Formats: sequence, structure tokens, C-alpha cells
Amino acid sequence: MLDPSRGRAATITSPASATVFTMVLTQGPVSRVEIARRTGLSSAAVTKAARPFIDAGYLFEMAATERTGPGAGRPASPLAIHPDREFFVGVKITDDDLIGVVTDLRAQVVEEAHRSLSARTPEHVVAELKALADELLGRAPGYRERCHSLGLAISGDVDKSTGLVRYSPFLRWHEVPLGELARAATGLTVTVENDVKALTVAEHWFGEGVGASSFALVTVGLGIGCAVVVDDRLVAGARGVAGEIGHVPVGGDSPPCHCGGHGCVEAIAGTPAVVAAARAALGDETLTLDGAMAAARSGSPAAMAVFARAGEAIGRAMAAMANLIGPERIIVSGDMPGLAAYELFEDQLRAAFTQQAFGAAADCRLILRPSPFEQWARGAAAVAIQTLFTLQER
Amino acid sequence: MLDPSRGRAATITSPASATVFTMVLTQGPVSRVEIARRTGLSSAAVTKAARPFIDAGYLFEMAATERTGPGAGRPASPLAIHPDREFFVGVKITDDDLIGVVTDLRAQVVEEAHRSLSARTPEHVVAELKALADELLGRAPGYRERCHSLGLAISGDVDKSTGLVRYSPFLRWHEVPLGELARAATGLTVTVENDVKALTVAEHWFGEGVGASSFALVTVGLGIGCAVVVDDRLVAGARGVAGEIGHVPVGGDSPPCHCGGHGCVEAIAGTPAVVAAARAALGDETLTLDGAMAAARSGSPAAMAVFARAGEAIGRAMAAMANLIGPERIIVSGDMPGLAAYELFEDQLRAAFTQQAFGAAADCRLILRPSPFEQWARGAAAVAIQTLFTLQER
Ligand SMILES: [Zn+2]
Ligand SMILES: [Zn+2]
Repeated sequence: MLDPSRGRAATITSPASATVFTMVLTQGPVSRVEIARRTGLSSAAVTKAARPFIDAGYLFEMAATERTGPGAGRPASPLAIHPDREFFVGVKITDDDLIGVVTDLRAQVVEEAHRSLSARTPEHVVAELKALADELLGRAPGYRERCHSLGLAISGDVDKSTGLVRYSPFLRWHEVPLGELARAATGLTVTVENDVKALTVAEHWFGEGVGASSFALVTVGLGIGCAVVVDDRLVAGARGVAGEIGHVPVGGDSPPCHCGGHGCVEAIAGTPAVVAAARAALGDETLTLDGAMAAARSGSPAAMAVFARAGEAIGRAMAAMANLIGPERIIVSGDMPGLAAYELFEDQLRAAFTQQAFGAAADCRLILRPSPFEQWARGAAAVAIQTLFTLQER
Repeated sequence: MLDPSRGRAATITSPASATVFTMVLTQGPVSRVEIARRTGLSSAAVTKAARPFIDAGYLFEMAATERTGPGAGRPASPLAIHPDREFFVGVKITDDDLIGVVTDLRAQVVEEAHRSLSARTPEHVVAELKALADELLGRAPGYRERCHSLGLAISGDVDKSTGLVRYSPFLRWHEVPLGELARAATGLTVTVENDVKALTVAEHWFGEGVGASSFALVTVGLGIGCAVVVDDRLVAGARGVAGEIGHVPVGGDSPPCHCGGHGCVEAIAGTPAVVAAARAALGDETLTLDGAMAAARSGSPAAMAVFARAGEAIGRAMAAMANLIGPERIIVSGDMPGLAAYELFEDQLRAAFTQQAFGAAADCRLILRPSPFEQWARGAAAVAIQTLFTLQER
């Protein structure tokens, strides 16, 4: 049905073309009339914007349907997307492996693969990235011809506009031009994004965030991370700092935090803090996170209290965020396999949130859900999709 | 120079006309070329958008100037505004008086007047509002013909889109259709806004917020309030709750707050909390805020510690906000005449902010500045100006 020789994506040439294509991509099928109504564009502008995407095989017009209900009878021909018109590779980079996926245009995962890292140098990571992309794109005919974009998600301080990893604590990278290196190795267009932001983009365009003009995603693990979408845009922060919910001081003056502050939620509820508190509470200096969870699950009051305190701190920090920003909903996701143990702190998290949220902010919907690493890789692909279909400034 | 018979404002008819007029209003004089460059509009679109405002006497073309420097020689004719083409009345409503101003198009105050309230009923307040507007607009010929808009600023929960005051604790109003009542009484177009948001709009369009795509304003007084601008838009909150910095729990578990939460900055640093703490510290159950400030200024360590703790709590809550949102700058303003006593807590506020702000967020510029009630009335006028020159949705 699709002709690969048509080649590269129809490009985004105007705000209208970005708006129309994105609406069909994230909310379609949807009729031209409805697109015009929601965006304020004229019908002619919608038709003009959709045309190149139809010609290139990204969009198609569904058979006219009869409307039912009030105002019925006028035929509408919704625009819909061919999800397999283009594919995307997304990779989550951790400190000891790469988790890769191939997704379609709607960020649905169609392939998955992993590779272990034997070193953390940029050279090794990029070589493994290329091997992973080759493996993924070799799995079915058509992937390679219809894939032009690679998204990378990595924890730390990332300049998405240039693909520069300014600082990645786990990999111990400083000022690594990862985007450039990966582009040279793979030949693909590369977008690099902070991993929490990437997961948020996936939710914003293709998940719980669809239809919410504001929402937040909180990740619980080694650190407590967060990204916030307001008025349909990811909040970036004037100095690149935003979403640092881990350093909201819900603990009053204690404990001290590695950031130099005091009472930070991360110093109470981050994995190292939870393990340290459990070791102290149970008098066992060799206890692991798994051991602490097992003790709590078997009913040890001391271990249960450690998780309860963590949940309370996270809930209070989320309430502080809701009081300041007022998101429609908040998604809570673990970035550690272990902390999918929501039952150990979910009740306390919800209760603390409800108590500390101001007025109607307490009605904010909280969605607790683990995110396996494949979800983070999917986030990387979603960032590549968003980059391709967003009008680039300047 | 201006012909009042031209009557009402040139109206905003498209996003382009709002963008062009607002840019000249808030950043002018500015040439068409420069407007096109900054907005991405074509030169033709800029000229078309400016035309009705020139015809109606709002904008004019300055004499062509020769550019200097690189690329010199091409004449530019900047567009500028006639600030006195239209006037606006702004009124801050407190629980015992009305503070009113007349401003020009740039929110510069040209007249001021006060009226005391002898009752808090909507009927009495609206009658006094009309008398205040009549007094202000009668002060100079031209005001009445060139003034069509009244802005009202009031603390509490306000629905700006309908002019409904949902709840105002100080006036003890519930569900008062203030906008409608004031329009019927004065014949003016009325916009009602929460007072902290109104002050923020004045800073955003005409003050410290100009040129900052994100900033926050924090008010210190009976309560601790806040409003946040992100990507040039005031954050409203999905359920009407946003900017509630007063209920960020920086105090850990204590003290309890009237909101039902614990450790809220308002329960530590709001005026009632400061007075209560000073009374306890000095063993004087009749101490007033003025008395507490006098004691601190005369060197009483116990009184000084009370203000220091308030400053620290405010600074930590501001850091939590900066960590989450990353504003370019934060303006701190007192809403009580008394709390212009910044010297009693400014050092502690700045130190706590710096300690708790994460990474580069600590570089956020903090501007501490008292706002007399006239500034709040000016904020109300600024909201009326913004309403007039913003494309209204739906
Ligand atoms: Zn910290
Ligand atoms: Zn509170």
C-alpha cells in the first residue's frame, strides 16, 4: 500500500501543518471539520496542511461515514494515520545496558532488544548503539527503509537542541556530544533527551497525558524525578532546571541531602535513603532493597514504617507541586524494577497527598504504574517522533 | 492629536493583531522588520495587523531613523504607542477600603483615589466603586471619553472569565457576580481577577517580567501567595488552584495549618503566625506586628529569631518552586504595609533559597520590593488592558 520509494517524511513547513498532523497522530481519526473546530484553522487551511501528508502516505481519508445524533446526515471523512508509514528506534541508556525498541508512528513498540555494556566510554556506548540499531532494524524488511530517526534517553543534564550530554552522573560523562557521535555511527537523525522528560513526552502524546493540557510525571527510584507539562508544553526551566521534585524540602530541617539542602524528599524516599533507613531500623548493615521489601511484606513493623515514611514524603512533595502548578493528573512511575512495590507505600502516598493538597488540588488524579525500561526506550522513540513533527524554532 | 470621536478601541481580530499590538505596547518602539523577525510573521502580515491600530490612533509610525552599526543605512520607522489614547480604571478591593487609580495604556498611574468601606455587602461595595470611578474619571477632561474598561483586584477565588467572585474570605463573599454588578453600575467593561494574579500581570506586561518568558511573584502578608508565568502565560491550574506556595510544607510535620496540612510556610511566615510566635517568644499576649518589628529592630534576639525563621521558611518554599518550575526571576512583594520590613528577614530568605535551590536554580534572580496598595490597583488596570488586547477564546 505504501511506496517506500517516496522516501523521507513530508516535512513540517508551518505551524498549521504541525498542528493538523499532530492532531491526527495523537487524537485521530478525526474529520477536517472537527480539526478546524478544535484548532481555529479554516477548512481550507486544514485541507492544505493535510495534503502533503496524504501524498506521502502518512495520512489517508477514511470512507465517509454518516453521523448519528443531532445534526446527523452530513457525511464526514475522518483523516487517519498509517502507523507503519515510518518507524523509529528508541534507546534507553543505563549505566550497564542499552534497552532498544522499534516503534511505529504512534509509538507502539514492534521490536525490542537489549545489549550489555562492558564499558562506559562514549566510544563503546556508541558502538553498541549502532550494533543495537542494526539488530533491531534488520528484524523485518521495511524497517530500514522507513526508519530515519533515533531517539536516545539518558539520565542527567541534556541539551536536546544540540544533542550534548552535559553531565550524566551514572555514566560519569561530561560534555559528551552524544547526538553527533550517534548520528555519525548510525546515519540516522538523532534526538537526545533526559530520560524522565522522554517518558513524559510518551505520556503527553500517546499515553495518560493525551487530552490533559497539564500533567506531571513523577519517577521514584535512585532519585525522585519529575517532569511537568503546562499548556501542552514541557516546562524546561530558565536555567535548564525544572521538575526537581526530589529537592522539595518536605522533611523540615532533616535529613541533609547530597544537593546541599535539607529535608529533601530524595534524601528520605530515594532508594539509597530507603535502604539506609531499613538497615538502621532492622540493625542489618548488609540489607538490600529486596531484603527490605521482603521484610516489609512479611509484616515487620520497622520495615513497613520505612516504606510508609517514603510514601508520605513523596505524597507531600507531589502535593507541593500540585499546589504550585495544578496539573490535571499526576503519573507516578518507578524507574527501578524493585520499586514497582507500590503496595508498600501507595496508601501513605495518597493519604499524604490528599492531606497536603490545597482545596480542589486534592482532586487531582494520581495514577501509580511501574514503567519497565522498555517504556523508557519507547519514550526515547516518542521524542524522535515529536522532533520530526514539531516545527523547529529558528 | 487624537480624535476622541473615533471612539472605542480598534479590536483584536486575530492572533496576529494581538501579537503585533502587544509587542509594540510592551516592548515598543519597535520596527516592523523587528516585529516580523521576533514573531515569525511576514512583513505584510505585520503591516496589515498594525493598520487598524494606526487608523484608530493607538499606534503611530515614528520618523524614519538611520540605523547605525553593521547593516546600517536602511531606514527603519519604528511603531510606537500613544499611551494616552485610552485610559483604564483599576481598583484594589480590601476588606475596609477601595484603592483606585487611572492609568494610561502602558499602566502608568495618572490619578489615585481612596474610599473607605462602611460595610462589606456587595451592594455597598459596588455603590462605592461607582462613586470612586466617577471621582477618578471626573478629574480631567478626556478621561471619561477615553475610558471604557474597569479592572478589579480582590483576594480569594475568582472566575475571571465570568467576573464571579466564588469566595473571598476577608469580605466573606460567596458566589458574588461582581463583574456583572460593577458593569451595571458603571457602564464600563469589567474584568475581575484575583489580586496576586493582577499584580503578576502588571509585572509581566509592564514591569520586571518584561522579557522574561518565565517568572514568579510571591506576596508576603496575611497569607503567602504566588503566581507563576511559564512560556508567557499565567499558570491557572487545572482546577483553578495554582501558585499556592503558602501551603508548600517546608516545616516538616509542624506546625499544623488552617488548610489541613502540616508545616506550611503560611503557618510559619504569614502575619498571624509571626505575631503568635513573637507573642510566645516575648511573653506578651498583646503584642502587635508593629510591636514585634520594633522589638526585632531594637535587637531583641527572641524577636529577631521569629522574623529569621519566617524568612527562612519563605526562602525554602521559593526554592521548592524554583526547583519545580525554574523561573528566570522571582519578585517578592509584601501585601501589608508592615511587611515592607524586609531587612528583618531578607538575609535569611536569600540564604535559605540559595541553600535549597538545586544547581543552576540558585542563580535565579530574587527581587524584594514592597508593593503599596496603589501597585495592586495598577495591577487591576493592567488586567483590564490585557483583557482588551488579548484575543478572547471562544
Ligand atoms: Zn536535595
Ligand atoms: Zn497550609
